[in-house]
Amino acid sequence: MLNQKYYGYGTAPSVIRELFAYGLEQAKIVGKDKVYDYSLGNPSIPAPAKVNDTIKKLVDEESSILLHGYSMAPGFESTREAIAANLRKRFNTNAKASELFMTCGCAPALISVACALTSEPDDNFVVIAPYFPEYNVFFKAGGGKVRRVAPDIPDFQINLEALEETVNHDTVAVVINSPNNPSGVIYTKETLEKIAAVLKKKSVKYGHPIYIVADEPYRELVYGDAKVTFIPEVYDDTIVCYSWSKSLSLPGERIGYVYVPEKCANGQALYATIAGAAREIGSVCPPTLIQRVVEECVDCEPDLLAYDENRNDLYNGLTEMGYECAKPDGAFYLFMKAPNGDDMAFSEAAKLEENILIVPGTGFGCPGYIRLAYCVSNKTIKDSMPGFKRLIEKYGK
Amino acid sequence: MLNQKYYGYGTAPSVIRELFAYGLEQAKIVGKDKVYDYSLGNPSIPAPAKVNDTIKKLVDEESSILLHGYSMAPGFESTREAIAANLRKRFNTNAKASELFMTCGCAPALISVACALTSEPDDNFVVIAPYFPEYNVFFKAGGGKVRRVAPDIPDFQINLEALEETVNHDTVAVVINSPNNPSGVIYTKETLEKIAAVLKKKSVKYGHPIYIVADEPYRELVYGDAKVTFIPEVYDDTIVCYSWSKSLSLPGERIGYVYVPEKCANGQALYATIAGAAREIGSVCPPTLIQRVVEECVDCEPDLLAYDENRNDLYNGLTEMGYECAKPDGAFYLFMKAPNGDDMAFSEAAKLEENILIVPGTGFGCPGYIRLAYCVSNKTIKDSMPGFKRLIEKYGK
Repeated sequence: MLNQKYYGYGTAPSVIRELFAYGLEQAKIVGKDKVYDYSLGNPSIPAPAKVNDTIKKLVDEESSILLHGYSMAPGFESTREAIAANLRKRFNTNAKASELFMTCGCAPALISVACALTSEPDDNFVVIAPYFPEYNVFFKAGGGKVRRVAPDIPDFQINLEALEETVNHDTVAVVINSPNNPSGVIYTKETLEKIAAVLKKKSVKYGHPIYIVADEPYRELVYGDAKVTFIPEVYDDTIVCYSWSKSLSLPGERIGYVYVPEKCANGQALYATIAGAAREIGSVCPPTLIQRVVEECVDCEPDLLAYDENRNDLYNGLTEMGYECAKPDGAFYLFMKAPNGDDMAFSEAAKLEENILIVPGTGFGCPGYIRLAYCVSNKTIKDSMPGFKRLIEKYGK
Repeated sequence: MLNQKYYGYGTAPSVIRELFAYGLEQAKIVGKDKVYDYSLGNPSIPAPAKVNDTIKKLVDEESSILLHGYSMAPGFESTREAIAANLRKRFNTNAKASELFMTCGCAPALISVACALTSEPDDNFVVIAPYFPEYNVFFKAGGGKVRRVAPDIPDFQINLEALEETVNHDTVAVVINSPNNPSGVIYTKETLEKIAAVLKKKSVKYGHPIYIVADEPYRELVYGDAKVTFIPEVYDDTIVCYSWSKSLSLPGERIGYVYVPEKCANGQALYATIAGAAREIGSVCPPTLIQRVVEECVDCEPDLLAYDENRNDLYNGLTEMGYECAKPDGAFYLFMKAPNGDDMAFSEAAKLEENILIVPGTGFGCPGYIRLAYCVSNKTIKDSMPGFKRLIEKYGK
């Protein structure tokens, strides 16, 4: 009687959750400062002060009935206009409020798009390894399939030949996540232009548009001189999914959007279809207080100094010991090769021998690699270095 | 290429939304105080002061990283424990935190339950007219069907014979919404016990449990001596879906839960299946600041004086003129008979001739009746009375 797919989703073990829970238990035994938890992508820098200031201001000044009342299904007009203005200012786009649909975080944004684009059971979404494991849930939500492109090792750009082989007649979209979780790599403009060329050719060949779904929660987490290309600038048929979970350190507040440029193939119908899917999954009129907060804070920039310091200390520390990894330019992840080639075994050894909690790449579609989420204290990084040293001495070649 | 079901959902006209939009336009022409908008179920009393006080306290005292960070998928343990304690205190239940799953409002709660209980295309949910129109979307979300029980006119309790005929071998649940939207009627304990007896018999006959899905956002909006029965007390296989949208006047903040008592048939597996469905629709770890707020405000009681005054003035005013309606005991809706028998035409006449915005019952599965949402100012009620008088004089028998 119970739906077996959902029973499976609800009971599937989660490597990340289990690592996290193990860490909490170990902390009781060895002390919190002796557990080095790189498992979760939960921001470790606080939200900009303006966020909490705005919350208090709104609570003091706005009518409770308006502040906590329903917005229209796609969100407040004023909120969407503020976001559109921010996009127009920063990118080569004439984004309009009517092209934005507010959602309860990035997950419902991706799911609504997946449902809207799926009309046949063979329809598929192409994802590029390494990728966020929940893509396997989100992009099947409309009843379609997920096809995977093998990782482009060791640079973690995109293997264009593999992409070209994977996109087929039933492909409705290619999912691009840059800066990437778990690699931290930013796809270059050149890479994206090549993808655009492939998809234009394939769209003509198969007689229907193949969209890019740009999953962009890490868009503002960029270090040094690195640049993130705004994908609608290089490919018209791009749908952008965004949340402020990382850029404003608000992952718990569930606020994001879908941006469907009118210039997209079937742009207005696509927007309506995404809105209809959002209705079925119950992600309409998202949290109103937080809508108003992002409206006022949309121009805030995250203070990335702490992440950047972590990034450098972790990357330099590990590579000096002999670990191999692509230097991450964005997000707050570092993706390194398991020194013994076996990500599952190495993660387990790090956990049991050193209380270092790191996530095997297998779940990201990239066995042999390990994800470290460096949204931790700098002390965690420094204190974990001797453990990493012992691990590579024991398990490295 | 676009999913036609979702395109339909995204472009379907909404009578309520169109009435509301018409009202905004008319207000520009005739003045806001000459438009009598009974269309929306948006609370008109502010949230209890403790809500905003708690928001400010949390923002001042709690770490931003914890306050705005992810909770676990089912919500904070402490929030769920506070809710369970409140349920234990008020009802004959031993509710536990582990039986509660927090959701982004009541819609995702109902949708997750619908998905969890649907495993075959013929599976159906029985809804009882008059019912919330979105049930037609929510309960089909898992791919199943909706079957309707005709309304029990004029009392709007439940026609048990009709229910018995409608429940069939493929029925997985009966949806009960009391206090009811749109009738404002509370199902008596006697009515609920009779339903329980029918469903027990039918469960045995068909060899599988038939659940009750109790949709209870109006549970605390009750007037006079009326009592709302907590349905798990009369029927073991009850799943409760709740939100604070109405009781704390927080509809925009998207916070609710599913309560799956362990004593339910397959209780623990059912909980896991609902959790899995919530994962697919992206309704996990709901808004954290607001989770913490309901944790602290769960014992707050709404100040219902204003609604009760509206209820009496509207009911007395209309019935004295000759309108027919069941006196509502709960929620903030009054459901009256269209004096000319034609709800669509009467609603249109009220709109065009008197700027009175009232919703036809057809969308609620009950043609010939009209819903008035009296979550408005008392002045709106008083000022609209002459218009109602003219309407019944013109269109009444």
